Amino acid sequence: MKSMRIAFLGPAASFSHQAAVESFGSSAELLPCVSFADAFAAVQDDKVDYAIIPCENSTNGSVVQTLDLLADPKGIYSDVEVCGEHYLTVHHCLLTRKGLSPPGRPGYSSITKLYTHPQAWGQCEGFLEGAFKGVERQDVSSTSKGAEIVSRETVERSAAIASRFAAEHHGLDVSEENIEDKANNTTRFLVFRNVTSGRAGRLSFEDIQVSMAQDPTSVTRTAQKTLISFMIRQDCPGALAEALLIFKDRGINLTSINTRPSQIQAWKYVFLVEGQAIPTGQHKDSISQIMERLERVTESCRHLGSWTDRLVPF
Amino acid sequence: MKSMRIAFLGPAASFSHQAAVESFGSSAELLPCVSFADAFAAVQDDKVDYAIIPCENSTNGSVVQTLDLLADPKGIYSDVEVCGEHYLTVHHCLLTRKGLSPPGRPGYSSITKLYTHPQAWGQCEGFLEGAFKGVERQDVSSTSKGAEIVSRETVERSAAIASRFAAEHHGLDVSEENIEDKANNTTRFLVFRNVTSGRAGRLSFEDIQVSMAQDPTSVTRTAQKTLISFMIRQDCPGALAEALLIFKDRGINLTSINTRPSQIQAWKYVFLVEGQAIPTGQHKDSISQIMERLERVTESCRHLGSWTDRLVPF
Repeated sequence: MKSMRIAFLGPAASFSHQAAVESFGSSAELLPCVSFADAFAAVQDDKVDYAIIPCENSTNGSVVQTLDLLADPKGIYSDVEVCGEHYLTVHHCLLTRKGLSPPGRPGYSSITKLYTHPQAWGQCEGFLEGAFKGVERQDVSSTSKGAEIVSRETVERSAAIASRFAAEHHGLDVSEENIEDKANNTTRFLVFRNVTSGRAGRLSFEDIQVSMAQDPTSVTRTAQKTLISFMIRQDCPGALAEALLIFKDRGINLTSINTRPSQIQAWKYVFLVEGQAIPTGQHKDSISQIMERLERVTESCRHLGSWTDRLVPF
Repeated sequence: MKSMRIAFLGPAASFSHQAAVESFGSSAELLPCVSFADAFAAVQDDKVDYAIIPCENSTNGSVVQTLDLLADPKGIYSDVEVCGEHYLTVHHCLLTRKGLSPPGRPGYSSITKLYTHPQAWGQCEGFLEGAFKGVERQDVSSTSKGAEIVSRETVERSAAIASRFAAEHHGLDVSEENIEDKANNTTRFLVFRNVTSGRAGRLSFEDIQVSMAQDPTSVTRTAQKTLISFMIRQDCPGALAEALLIFKDRGINLTSINTRPSQIQAWKYVFLVEGQAIPTGQHKDSISQIMERLERVTESCRHLGSWTDRLVPF
């Protein structure tokens, strides 16, 4: 079988890369993209089987670039739909050149410089204050980039803050794990495919999950998530509430609603509504009925996909 | 009368500063803050009469830092409420040192360097391509900062892209106005006050607007906006739709809904709901009734303020 082609947000060894490997395995052909829009275009143009893109972080909330690509008011990505999700817990590690220092704090005093993404300094403040007070810090464009710099050094004694995945990718030692201040900082990724694609032999994302799971029963979740976008008529007071009521009537529990500018007219919005339901066999009928009724009360609406809920409660 | 103290997001001559002058006049004491949180704290600690903070842009959507301060899951800003809004259309100008070059394009060829905030390059791409192709560009932390740098130069022949307001503040010439590619790029600011404040002689924001208007009838708008936040019980399917239905039942037209992380527990959210209604005399009763009913179906809820709709339709 031809290997699957998966677009992710680069660079190599980024958290998106890690999410792609966890979702599709390392035998898939993984293609780094320089932007979210590039990954969407790769799916729309049928150049890849899937794309995996971060959509939400448990601390920082929605990723607005992803919301705006989903809102898609100009219909550029009309064939792109969500077909799955993946949760990745963000763990930071202290990475050093192989053999530079023994694991654990005794060796840290020889380290004279640290590299990481600006956001990661803040996420590891407690650890850094304790072990690296006053040590020079150099910002880099991604945690993975910091790991790459350290891996290329030959004389300097520096360290990077990045993931274990980046350590493996760049051949570094993990001197200390889980150095983040706050546990459970988790990013949710969405998996996208082209609805019209006739790519030969493409497995469904659900089948891929079952084939990769060590315990296949663990992927048999019951709840289905659904994402729908719509614009309301501006001359209809109450139209938004009426549109949302349709979800309730069809047994869909609303979990998230976001408002994004339509880019068509100032203060005209696209609403992105995510809901959840236990499928009853008539789930697909429910979605069609929701869309039929939404068409009557909205200016435009679009079913952006339905997929299996993968959130494991903490 | 003691002059009013107003907090805004600095530096001096920023768009927030301009919004503050337009809303409160130049006789008010305007205090630049270094962050949104500082401005909220100044209101909460009763150090200012009002704060004015951007909450939404017609192109980029909600300002999430402002949403998160409003969501306020830990109740740090429990006395801060919204009491008004102000719309500011963002116009960029080409600013030069007084007398450096005559207005209009003939003089541009002598300009060897441009300063502005990274976002403004993108917003003026068409103008820059036409008149300044290949000219050196220097990023600065705010458009106002760029104007300040140019105003201090004595020998160099450079220009800044910033507002007319910044030109006046820093004593620069406006060589060309409205150089932005897209008209109607508008930012909405919210005005905040402390509900418990006993500041002597403080005028209501509405009274300030009436006193400042050249045509007082222009501020007699009829619609009232209301902002309410709530968290729903996670074990209640349908709770979000039920909460939103309460607004509809009380004649409030939902205009915007945003979902923000609660920071209390991963994937638990604060919903921020904005609605609009034509007050009927019973408007305050309606809000109390909404809050009473919301208290029954939500885990927590808060009325964040009601104010006069100031949007003039395009």
